[in-house]
Amino acid sequence: MNDRKPLILISNDDGVQAKGVNALVDMLSPLGDILVMAPDRARSGSACGITPHDPVRYRVVEERPGVKVCACTGTPVDCVKLALEAEAGRQPALLASGINHGDNSSVSVHYSGTMGVVIEGCMKGIPSVGFSLCDFDADADFSPAAPFVRGIAERVLREGLPDGVCLNVNFPKAAGYAGVRVCRMAHGTWANEWCGAVHPRGYKYYWLTGNYVDLEPEQQDTDAYALRHGFVAVTPVQIDMTAYQAMAGLKDLEKL
Amino acid sequence: MNDRKPLILISNDDGVQAKGVNALVDMLSPLGDILVMAPDRARSGSACGITPHDPVRYRVVEERPGVKVCACTGTPVDCVKLALEAEAGRQPALLASGINHGDNSSVSVHYSGTMGVVIEGCMKGIPSVGFSLCDFDADADFSPAAPFVRGIAERVLREGLPDGVCLNVNFPKAAGYAGVRVCRMAHGTWANEWCGAVHPRGYKYYWLTGNYVDLEPEQQDTDAYALRHGFVAVTPVQIDMTAYQAMAGLKDLEKL
Repeated sequence: MNDRKPLILISNDDGVQAKGVNALVDMLSPLGDILVMAPDRARSGSACGITPHDPVRYRVVEERPGVKVCACTGTPVDCVKLALEAEAGRQPALLASGINHGDNSSVSVHYSGTMGVVIEGCMKGIPSVGFSLCDFDADADFSPAAPFVRGIAERVLREGLPDGVCLNVNFPKAAGYAGVRVCRMAHGTWANEWCGAVHPRGYKYYWLTGNYVDLEPEQQDTDAYALRHGFVAVTPVQIDMTAYQAMAGLKDLEKL
Repeated sequence: MNDRKPLILISNDDGVQAKGVNALVDMLSPLGDILVMAPDRARSGSACGITPHDPVRYRVVEERPGVKVCACTGTPVDCVKLALEAEAGRQPALLASGINHGDNSSVSVHYSGTMGVVIEGCMKGIPSVGFSLCDFDADADFSPAAPFVRGIAERVLREGLPDGVCLNVNFPKAAGYAGVRVCRMAHGTWANEWCGAVHPRGYKYYWLTGNYVDLEPEQQDTDAYALRHGFVAVTPVQIDMTAYQAMAGLKDLEKL
């Protein structure tokens, strides 16, 4: 790799073959040397999962000037850790995750492997951004997102991000956007999550599905609201999950 | 189940057979009707991972007065979701996770399946507490934790927890504790995470390992500090990961 250009580490959770990660490589390759370390298969819903009890390996699947692509047997977070250990050679100037096929706004940040990548990068001190498109289609059209992906990446390469803070960027499914909104995570939940069925041998099994319910649909400062109204939603996410405002009310536990 | 007693939902990430989850059942069964829905095998490091592309099922593996135990093929978070769908019958008054074999303080909350269970329970509106012992041994001694587990559970059953807030409780490895501290999440990181080896066929593979590094060891208000000094660490954790303090500094992105 060429040390004169910034190193951009890319991963995702849809797997190395997904259209979204290849779109992201095309969008960001003008900005730096690209190292992709992505799962060798779809790993949606991996969150910040890691592989503590099985060996992990990777292989280089593509190499061309300025772009190296590796497929890894581990989780999205494993991919980040292993890229830094075995392939990066220097600290990436930017970590970009996605572009995910599907919405990762609101509480979905907790389940998202795309955001697992970003949280891991942030914990490793890399300015880290996750990109997701609200379209699950394997052939989704990522092109409307291109100028925004590049603009956000350029801004983060230039100015960095605060320590312990990363970005969750979600694009509505639309040919054009109403603009960009810096948002907070909507308070929402998933409902009707299981679809039961009966196996030919007679036992019941379940498919995880469900629909997202926005619990504060009237609030205009949330990512869910922005997306419903055609805006690109940029949500800053922090590593520190401490509920500081709850600490004083729990002090009685110190008398146990 | 008996509707006169509160329902306590229990899960973990070490699997239904682990000593820790069975210790937790024994500690909490005097306080309510116990429903265990735990993974059918070890699922450490699952974080908030879910199973979007495979069917999930469970079976009842034990039933005695006041205690029902189910083993589930899914992740720890799947266990919570499926217990509520298929077995609980009513909203649990408490969700307890663990007792984990191993430390889940500081940034380990992001990787922890034990805390995945707790975050899921919290998102479902259940007062939720994760318990972890800083001892990876399969035969770890959980008995010193018993009065504290019961005391915290009684307090949460009586008073609940604030909306969107759950508890991460970690016990030091010790025969007795210096007391209880309500803490914030320490700022730390994992280092030396991979141990490489060579397969008989000649390719390299990696084991995920590593050591935790406290990046603010002198700070006395963190969970990592409390544990190092023999205290039970109670860290309130919140669902909302928005980095509010970073929003103003990102407003320039709205001009993209």
